[in-house]
Amino acid sequence: MDKKKNISMAVIKRLPKYHRYLGDLMKNDVDRISSKELSETIGFTASQIRQDLNCFGDFGQQGYGYNVSELYSQIRSILGLTKVYNTAIIGAGNIGQALANYTRFEKLGFKLKIIFDINPKLVGIRIQDIEIKDIDYLTDYLKQNPIDIGILCVPNNSAQKVCDILIKNGVRGIWNFAPVDLVVPKDIKVENVHLSDSLLTLSCLLNDIE
Amino acid sequence: MDKKKNISMAVIKRLPKYHRYLGDLMKNDVDRISSKELSETIGFTASQIRQDLNCFGDFGQQGYGYNVSELYSQIRSILGLTKVYNTAIIGAGNIGQALANYTRFEKLGFKLKIIFDINPKLVGIRIQDIEIKDIDYLTDYLKQNPIDIGILCVPNNSAQKVCDILIKNGVRGIWNFAPVDLVVPKDIKVENVHLSDSLLTLSCLLNDIE
Repeated sequence: MDKKKNISMAVIKRLPKYHRYLGDLMKNDVDRISSKELSETIGFTASQIRQDLNCFGDFGQQGYGYNVSELYSQIRSILGLTKVYNTAIIGAGNIGQALANYTRFEKLGFKLKIIFDINPKLVGIRIQDIEIKDIDYLTDYLKQNPIDIGILCVPNNSAQKVCDILIKNGVRGIWNFAPVDLVVPKDIKVENVHLSDSLLTLSCLLNDIE
Repeated sequence: MDKKKNISMAVIKRLPKYHRYLGDLMKNDVDRISSKELSETIGFTASQIRQDLNCFGDFGQQGYGYNVSELYSQIRSILGLTKVYNTAIIGAGNIGQALANYTRFEKLGFKLKIIFDINPKLVGIRIQDIEIKDIDYLTDYLKQNPIDIGILCVPNNSAQKVCDILIKNGVRGIWNFAPVDLVVPKDIKVENVHLSDSLLTLSCLLNDIE
């Protein structure tokens, strides 16, 4: 899959949306779709779609369109959804608990193995049958149990410290909900969900229309 | 504030990050900062920063840098943070409850007024002293109590329907956590937080480095 290396960050950011729409088409037993038809539902231009999908293979045939199941399967593979990822949530506050309860991620192949928190009142509680462990146990746990993705839901002031422990112990991906920008080595991948930033973007847009 | 109209979506998306960093500088009593110094912490290039900040005023002085408090106050104003927004959460599942408990938003000026859910077991429960009301009451409530931002945390299949009710009753901004792309009139602003898409972006990045 050499073509994959050339996929830009902009295309990567659009792939999950293709995955969602193609999944819906599969559910509705649609066998093939043209870039024009896909454009009408997904909202990207037909030319953008052809360009994006061309990045990782030659699936479209002129006058025929895309084979939905082939394309879906290829996008799943590029998204890494043919594998299982072990995840750990660090920080069992509001967002951490909500994510632990969100079973949809497991269906996609993200297997929550453990939850950590610093608060003794939370330690020992089970969420979806996963026990919350004391954060002091984090390093020991990671040394014995490989975790692929750390889901960081700790307060700002401890985010970088916890991130460093995760990386030092083999975690390669950080899904970061703390509103800070983490400093990580180049081979570590970080995806931020900065909720406050997102809300401020909305208020900026609202402010603009007045 | 005529300059504001020219701010591109790309700049708008960066503004919350400027707001965070300038807020930290204010807390640390930093009076002024050059684009070069800001670049080292915020991670954008100095030239990018000068270009971004030039969009909405002439705050930088050569050899002096930016006046931190003036710039912070200007960015707050562009982000609409000098106002108070009334918000309603629709859908009191995991994410809805987590957001209701997240008091940081109120400090930024987003005042949660009410929560709605369809589940009779949740109706009547109070979160942070806000009662969860039956969704049947949504239209009547909105007619009597203006809401600026609807925080949509309902399942996929009811997201568009609830969104339509919100818009019909005066809501201008939708903060959408449902993994669907809503269809709205041009004057309505939508900001999506698609958690699954974000997680898939991370797995794609992880997959790429193997």
